[in-house]
Amino acid sequence: MKIEAKLSEMGLVLPEPIKIPEGLVLPFSFVRVRGNRAYISGHGAQNADGSLATPFGKLGADITIEQGYEAAKLTALSILGSLKHELGDLDRVTAWLRLFGMVNCTPDFDKQPAVINGCSDLIIALYGADIGAHSRSAVGMSSLPFGMTVEIEGEVEID
Amino acid sequence: MKIEAKLSEMGLVLPEPIKIPEGLVLPFSFVRVRGNRAYISGHGAQNADGSLATPFGKLGADITIEQGYEAAKLTALSILGSLKHELGDLDRVTAWLRLFGMVNCTPDFDKQPAVINGCSDLIIALYGADIGAHSRSAVGMSSLPFGMTVEIEGEVEID
Amino acid sequence: MKIEAKLSEMGLVLPEPIKIPEGLVLPFSFVRVRGNRAYISGHGAQNADGSLATPFGKLGADITIEQGYEAAKLTALSILGSLKHELGDLDRVTAWLRLFGMVNCTPDFDKQPAVINGCSDLIIALYGADIGAHSRSAVGMSSLPFGMTVEIEGEVEID
Repeated sequence: MKIEAKLSEMGLVLPEPIKIPEGLVLPFSFVRVRGNRAYISGHGAQNADGSLATPFGKLGADITIEQGYEAAKLTALSILGSLKHELGDLDRVTAWLRLFGMVNCTPDFDKQPAVINGCSDLIIALYGADIGAHSRSAVGMSSLPFGMTVEIEGEVEID
Repeated sequence: MKIEAKLSEMGLVLPEPIKIPEGLVLPFSFVRVRGNRAYISGHGAQNADGSLATPFGKLGADITIEQGYEAAKLTALSILGSLKHELGDLDRVTAWLRLFGMVNCTPDFDKQPAVINGCSDLIIALYGADIGAHSRSAVGMSSLPFGMTVEIEGEVEID
Repeated sequence: MKIEAKLSEMGLVLPEPIKIPEGLVLPFSFVRVRGNRAYISGHGAQNADGSLATPFGKLGADITIEQGYEAAKLTALSILGSLKHELGDLDRVTAWLRLFGMVNCTPDFDKQPAVINGCSDLIIALYGADIGAHSRSAVGMSSLPFGMTVEIEGEVEID
């Protein structure tokens, strides 16, 4: 278990499965596997217990770039938690393909790449330059569910 | 024709091909098929005659969540209409893979999942939990073409 | 080199590799190839020397539809430049599959399709109706990196 060992070395912990706010039904799969592809639903930052991680809010208003970077890093951990739950072993990911990074921000905020780097940096640190390489967009959204600061979806190749 | 029979049982009708507003040219394919994948362009709610369905507007301002849910359901029917047109038979879809749900909304609206459920619920009701399962994001857009309240794109596996 | 010959005939030039604004690190791949798929990161308009092309700004405020169309056309050239760099030969693209067109705009702007046509029109002019056909969304973003007016990501099939 190479990837999970690296996570431990880095002092990082996969969060528990996502705790959905009461009253909400989410009738989709956090990870959809078909053949050698896993499609990853939009994820946000979670606490270790699976609850949504604060702070909520918008870049350009109440959230700093450093806070946004940290939210994107926690979002990567949330994605990894869902992949672990679905695949059993994070080493089954043979190539990261696509990350679509969405930043909740004001209309004049233009530093989305510096925020979503929090996710990209962790994926590459864990998987290395070959497997961890990925295409990416980092863009500004009018708003996100629950007021989350970051939401990221993606696609990976699996064996 | 299992899926179309279910649609009839539910009292639902596939809309006619999309009627594009006059003067506009859309030089792309509503469904792009290649190998065992169909890539679905962004669709919105249509009336049965193919015209765009009102109401237009934004969640958080002039559109209620119930209206947004209905728009997402009509958008699912629009997608199914395009798939029927391209594939000939909706039973050729062997797995739903990804839905990307975009909600036209104000910056403080945060209930995008409750809106896009209108699409997810119909897909799962028609295709069942195995084939109908899909990854999903539901996010807030600054604006959408023609003032549509919902736009959804996606990807499915076909035989 | 069929596609590059067509570009020359049309008087168009592929830009140099993207020059990233100083101080920014972009730890991802502009094109991620795996098997017969190439995943294309979000691209924007570039000048021939690789720098970001002005004007920056929002449709519905400081950018006209004609300027937006031209930015989308330059974005297509930017994507083609990255594909050439990664694939060696633009003729290796055997099918365009998906373009996701994002327009930096005000909340009341609703003509995103007319803007993103600048990209679609060029792809189809170069590759023809069969290979160039693609699924597409054209949607309104709250904001984009560096204040770019257009950002487009996508996916193509390669041999």
